[in-house]
Amino acid sequence: MKIIVDAFGGDNAPFEILKGCAQAVDELDIDILLTGRKDEILRVAKENEISLNRMQIIDAPDVITMEDHAGEIMKSKVNSSMAEGLRRLAAGEGDAFLSAGNSGALVVGATLLVKRIKGIKRIAFAPVMPKKDGCFMLIDSGANVECKPDMLRQFGVMGSIYMEKVMKIPNPRVALANIGTEEHKGGELQHEAYAMLSKTDLNFIGNVEARDIPIDGADVIVADGFTGNTILKTYEGVAILLLGKLKGIFTKNIINKIAAGILLKDIKALMKTMDYNEYGGAPLMGCAKPVFKAHGSAKAKTFFNALRLTKAYVDGGVVDEIAASIANYRKDHGQEPVEDVSEE
Amino acid sequence: MKIIVDAFGGDNAPFEILKGCAQAVDELDIDILLTGRKDEILRVAKENEISLNRMQIIDAPDVITMEDHAGEIMKSKVNSSMAEGLRRLAAGEGDAFLSAGNSGALVVGATLLVKRIKGIKRIAFAPVMPKKDGCFMLIDSGANVECKPDMLRQFGVMGSIYMEKVMKIPNPRVALANIGTEEHKGGELQHEAYAMLSKTDLNFIGNVEARDIPIDGADVIVADGFTGNTILKTYEGVAILLLGKLKGIFTKNIINKIAAGILLKDIKALMKTMDYNEYGGAPLMGCAKPVFKAHGSAKAKTFFNALRLTKAYVDGGVVDEIAASIANYRKDHGQEPVEDVSEE
Repeated sequence: MKIIVDAFGGDNAPFEILKGCAQAVDELDIDILLTGRKDEILRVAKENEISLNRMQIIDAPDVITMEDHAGEIMKSKVNSSMAEGLRRLAAGEGDAFLSAGNSGALVVGATLLVKRIKGIKRIAFAPVMPKKDGCFMLIDSGANVECKPDMLRQFGVMGSIYMEKVMKIPNPRVALANIGTEEHKGGELQHEAYAMLSKTDLNFIGNVEARDIPIDGADVIVADGFTGNTILKTYEGVAILLLGKLKGIFTKNIINKIAAGILLKDIKALMKTMDYNEYGGAPLMGCAKPVFKAHGSAKAKTFFNALRLTKAYVDGGVVDEIAASIANYRKDHGQEPVEDVSEE
Repeated sequence: MKIIVDAFGGDNAPFEILKGCAQAVDELDIDILLTGRKDEILRVAKENEISLNRMQIIDAPDVITMEDHAGEIMKSKVNSSMAEGLRRLAAGEGDAFLSAGNSGALVVGATLLVKRIKGIKRIAFAPVMPKKDGCFMLIDSGANVECKPDMLRQFGVMGSIYMEKVMKIPNPRVALANIGTEEHKGGELQHEAYAMLSKTDLNFIGNVEARDIPIDGADVIVADGFTGNTILKTYEGVAILLLGKLKGIFTKNIINKIAAGILLKDIKALMKTMDYNEYGGAPLMGCAKPVFKAHGSAKAKTFFNALRLTKAYVDGGVVDEIAASIANYRKDHGQEPVEDVSEE
């Protein structure tokens, strides 16, 4: 398998990216196609004695920054490492693409360069997040601010396939994020999406309140991008607040420091389970080929994790499964097979 | 001052309610008008030696449960303690009304029995919540699933007045909950509300991401009810998850228990700052007279806290301030003074 990697995406590129890649070549038995400034990649690898074994480099002079507007990937940043990687993926030079760069640009670039699976209306940004035990997918988490009910139905289908094939959760429970569990809760979007999800053969368990999501609301939480992003960001904010306050207690005085020392191992394990970096990042669901987003602040270990999940995304045959599911749905509903679906 | 209290609202009525009321009579120098089953109030007070000094009882045979549909307050539950209390408030028999009962029913009942301040389009449910230091108001948190931009402007005005007059925060910072800080973020509702809030004389600081809310996003977070409820419930869920995991660590084995014992006082203080009960509940903003919601699981101490805040809601002259602000706005915008505003 060959994974195309944006060597200049994220806060710690290219050093931590290269380190993560070197580990992945060794441990995951993959080949890597790096995109980015070739000279700098070679220099950083040499200075830090990072092996570039089984890695090929495609020179790309530009870098998309976190501050760039998403659309620049098709304009001023068309020669960026991200755009180049996506073009190479579209051209069949690799099996998947991984970047720790600008999420918005990645969604725009993936949509326009890699294209969507036939019949899929929108690409969704779908992080896998920690809950009380295990994890869940939050789809969509911000790629699509305004959604139609049928998009939410597709998010449910895609999320269910991913959680089953990649995260190995049998018959994943799919739920709709809402402000109450009763069927009549929420607005028009929720009412219509609820009805549509009920008619699928998904393991749809109905509405879930945000309060229950961190405990064990479902394996796939379906939401429009505004709601999903709000859940994602509140999740992060409250965790940061509480863990920060805890740190304050642990370092308050010498007695507390000693007590905290005893608990340290367990507390660190807790922080790890709550750390969304540990899960490696977020797949972009609905692309015609696997595209994966690593966390912008990813260091080598997290980036390695993301490479592992990107490989699992390919191995799981997720794209083909989604394509088959969408084609079946169209057939069952008397719709013609599509060559492509235009933006409405 | 006389506060009307729903003696049969919430999970712990009437015992904990009566205990909280007795403390409030002593410490806050207020009179109380209780609504509910008179016989049971008298029996519980006698059995538990709770003084009913400065308390008057209005018999009301029914109780609205947490499971009742909100609209029942105007139908099958028109003789409930909640409906009776709201009617007495509307009739001028008290200065404010406090209930720990069904939030939805309270919003419906307050809207139809107490009515809105002239010119106010919607009553908002607006809990005051903990952040890193101090607290903030989240308005609306679920009373209005679908909102128009002008409602969000009014939420900002009402929240600002409450935080200044009751929580004593000078010149409160008002922000719009959004999925990014840039002005163009979000959907049509956010764009229009942003423009409207910018034109007010509020201390409007722009958009705030949910991630920053728990740290110190603003003093007043403005949102439509769907988004606000999602933030509120995610907040609660993540806090429950983390504090639960922490408890697991502290009780894991004897060594951990000893270490946790040392930290216990500080951890308890942390839990207290994160406990939204400690803040006593949520005012309903926009009612023609002060209506306050205590947490459904409120015990005596929390209910006492809610009574203290209800008194501050009256003392702060919040309703008059809002009425004056809305009247000024209409005048400034060349609109006629209103006698009442119908639902659109």
